[in-house]
Amino acid sequence: MRSVVALAGGVGGAKLALGFSQILCPDELTVIVNTADDDRFYGLHVSPDLDTVMYTLAGVSNVEMGWGLKDESFRTLGKLKEYGLDAWFNLGDLDLATHLFRTQMIDEGRTLSEVCAKLTDALGVRHRLLPVTDDPIRTMIETDDGMMSFQEYFVKNRCDPVVRSISFAGSENCRITDDTKESLVNMDLLVFCPSNPFLSLAPILSVPGFREMLGSYSGKSIAVSPIVGGKAIKGPAAKILQELGHDVSSLGVARQYVGLCDIFIIDEIDVSMKESIESLGMEVFVTKTVMQTNQEKQQLAEFILDIST
Amino acid sequence: MRSVVALAGGVGGAKLALGFSQILCPDELTVIVNTADDDRFYGLHVSPDLDTVMYTLAGVSNVEMGWGLKDESFRTLGKLKEYGLDAWFNLGDLDLATHLFRTQMIDEGRTLSEVCAKLTDALGVRHRLLPVTDDPIRTMIETDDGMMSFQEYFVKNRCDPVVRSISFAGSENCRITDDTKESLVNMDLLVFCPSNPFLSLAPILSVPGFREMLGSYSGKSIAVSPIVGGKAIKGPAAKILQELGHDVSSLGVARQYVGLCDIFIIDEIDVSMKESIESLGMEVFVTKTVMQTNQEKQQLAEFILDIST
Repeated sequence: MRSVVALAGGVGGAKLALGFSQILCPDELTVIVNTADDDRFYGLHVSPDLDTVMYTLAGVSNVEMGWGLKDESFRTLGKLKEYGLDAWFNLGDLDLATHLFRTQMIDEGRTLSEVCAKLTDALGVRHRLLPVTDDPIRTMIETDDGMMSFQEYFVKNRCDPVVRSISFAGSENCRITDDTKESLVNMDLLVFCPSNPFLSLAPILSVPGFREMLGSYSGKSIAVSPIVGGKAIKGPAAKILQELGHDVSSLGVARQYVGLCDIFIIDEIDVSMKESIESLGMEVFVTKTVMQTNQEKQQLAEFILDIST
Repeated sequence: MRSVVALAGGVGGAKLALGFSQILCPDELTVIVNTADDDRFYGLHVSPDLDTVMYTLAGVSNVEMGWGLKDESFRTLGKLKEYGLDAWFNLGDLDLATHLFRTQMIDEGRTLSEVCAKLTDALGVRHRLLPVTDDPIRTMIETDDGMMSFQEYFVKNRCDPVVRSISFAGSENCRITDDTKESLVNMDLLVFCPSNPFLSLAPILSVPGFREMLGSYSGKSIAVSPIVGGKAIKGPAAKILQELGHDVSSLGVARQYVGLCDIFIIDEIDVSMKESIESLGMEVFVTKTVMQTNQEKQQLAEFILDIST
């Protein structure tokens, strides 16, 4: 039996997690998810990455929108706008149920992990999904237009402002959850999903105790580049790499994982970078990493499992 | 210029308030609304009577359902039920916007009155709608099945349990709002709408300071019987009158208003009770009180204005 831990942010991570979930038994896979994009909107606790992974694994995600639930409608938000609310953070009517449910439970004193377990149960997700921490941690983006929360940067300003630095407010007071710790102790494979290294994986790594757990781990750590052919499959990874002064390439990403991963997977289109990345001290594998079909998700997951044994 | 104050609960009160609003200028009418049916559901502050009056005056109420907004859908609640929530208190997708808006503002420290003003503004309601108090007051019903909140009695148990007594938790610590006080000081006509005397008007009267304000009022006070032909037009008024040992008739209602009203209006069908009610010390007028059409609402409002001058 395998014991695979996948670290994931939003869409890219969710795709690979889905691939794993279709070839591993429920007790062979744990997905640890970034919670630093969480925020309160309209009084509700929204957990964008947890929901993206959860909806994706449940087969109910809205693939066209790239977030939320399929067959969605937006009547409540429309009405809130009529009431004069600057409702720039869009939430669907079905999605709202998730946030109402979560907020009520959290306000009653339950943890994000407990809520996540209840929601995944209800949605029929059998593989384990864990928030990295139950404590508040918030990505803050310092830009040329000032400091802003992740959602202000990502949704309200459509990633337009030039990023100067990224920090994770509250991370110093976070603790990794017991379940997260246990999964890290027992894992025999660690996968850094093709998520944004700065916005999705760095906050996970910033939670006190997380890096220390990796230090005492002797198994394989494999990262998949979210940059393919110099472009991000989705989201602002390429723009942020450039603005923070890094190479906009899988090599630029690989440098972020030095000391963390021993295997780095790049796309066939980036085969020319193999040697440069190897010179960072990583073993490099080349395969098709762009996951559109279900089959492609499973193939990448299978490839990772194969090279890790 | 008139200065009419109407005391209202839900549907019956809203109908007469609508009639008044169509024949009085915005600054001639204030509707003071019961807030003791307010409750939190799914973490949201719901104000059933305020919303019923507000939606009715805005012309957007759902007449078929008797609550909420027209053209309503129930996608969020349906999803919450899928999550295993015992979602017995139904809220529509459009209606949810009202509760999200209200809850967020209240949690930010705004008063119910401030929220009400913003919502009525947004909905184009020009006549003044006031919660009787900004402080928490909750109707509690002691029944043969135990003590329960108003909504548990009214919605969850469909008014089935036998009522033993009714109390208004928190009323001793409530204050009437400054706006309510000001409208009571300036009024030249007070109308007790055909709302439930025990559940809609008694909680208004229970707010400290309210009865004292009426004591120093020397104008006309007119009540309209919500019981017509021994039956309630809507809701449990008849059942509660009976269970609390009162006559199930407009006479039984009139007895609740002794010392509060000098004029009592009964329906033509109840003309035989005129003398009995007069013997309570009230002047009694007989007219058509059942309001189905808009015209009937205006006619009753006009009748009240006529007999008060």
